[in-house]
Amino acid sequence: MKAVAEIQVIPIGVGVSVRKEVQRAHEIIKASGLKVQLHAYGTNVEGEIDDIFAAIKQVHETLHGDGTVARLSTAIKLGTRTDKEPSLDNKLF
Amino acid sequence: MKAVAEIQVIPIGVGVSVRKEVQRAHEIIKASGLKVQLHAYGTNVEGEIDDIFAAIKQVHETLHGDGTVARLSTAIKLGTRTDKEPSLDNKLF
Amino acid sequence: MKAVAEIQVIPIGVGVSVRKEVQRAHEIIKASGLKVQLHAYGTNVEGEIDDIFAAIKQVHETLHGDGTVARLSTAIKLGTRTDKEPSLDNKLF
Amino acid sequence: MKAVAEIQVIPIGVGVSVRKEVQRAHEIIKASGLKVQLHAYGTNVEGEIDDIFAAIKQVHETLHGDGTVARLSTAIKLGTRTDKEPSLDNKLF
Repeated sequence: MKAVAEIQVIPIGVGVSVRKEVQRAHEIIKASGLKVQLHAYGTNVEGEIDDIFAAIKQVHETLHGDGTVARLSTAIKLGTRTDKEPSLDNKLF
Repeated sequence: MKAVAEIQVIPIGVGVSVRKEVQRAHEIIKASGLKVQLHAYGTNVEGEIDDIFAAIKQVHETLHGDGTVARLSTAIKLGTRTDKEPSLDNKLF
Repeated sequence: MKAVAEIQVIPIGVGVSVRKEVQRAHEIIKASGLKVQLHAYGTNVEGEIDDIFAAIKQVHETLHGDGTVARLSTAIKLGTRTDKEPSLDNKLF
Repeated sequence: MKAVAEIQVIPIGVGVSVRKEVQRAHEIIKASGLKVQLHAYGTNVEGEIDDIFAAIKQVHETLHGDGTVARLSTAIKLGTRTDKEPSLDNKLF
């Protein structure tokens, strides 16, 4: 099932600046092969729902993996539809 | 990896009342075996991250499957941490 | 205009545990006079839209005011409708 | 107090296509004088917190006002910080 999504990763416990960790999350999502569009409040993606979930899981595993980020709060918006193919470009006007 | 999450399913295109579809989504999540807590803005869950994603996917597949819901916008908040086991009860005070 | 809302306050830069600050945010919202329902992922409220916004602003001003929380990321879901009075209880089933 | 925010307006009960109403919401936010950045999942804004709340209220009042949108679910992310001026551009890398 194809979907569009917005992924916003909030690292907790690394200090007031979270830039390094947020950038790393974006790079992981980008490397997943999903179509990505970065903006100030997250990364918008388009692709198979399984690939979207896999990319999110990989962000959590990777950022926790080296012990620098103890806590992650990720906000996801997930959109699917049956009347036409879900598309990021189609959501703009 | 264990996680906590909030799942809010918004059916689009079924009319102003979305109660029936939202209730159905909650029932699917509940039947998945995850620990669930219903509130006015969604279903909070606790369990394995793979099971959480599987439950969300099943909601989308099921609600789209019989042709009554053409569009779904789901808002998910996903929490993981390495300093202790993620827990819904632990998030309350 | 009456509305329902969910308010989730995420303090950034205070460490891995954010319980004290989240509890304080909830107490401020509760003291605002809005109808409140606490759950693991935030505080659901019901009342006038102006009072909801005022409560959120007060949370940010108060938590920033004493210098302990340098950064706040608040997620809000806001619901209004014209066919009937918005109500938290009505969103349950 | 200056803030950054993301505003995503979801019209419920107008059908599967919500493009017209979402575009109208964006135009109202843009006309408010806030700095705006449109993306596929909403409008990012930067400005005074009171002006951000006023713009959101105006979206709800306007879209409900002519009777075409009976129900609105708006997702807002609100960010403030005291260590430096909140800025949309600063959130990018």
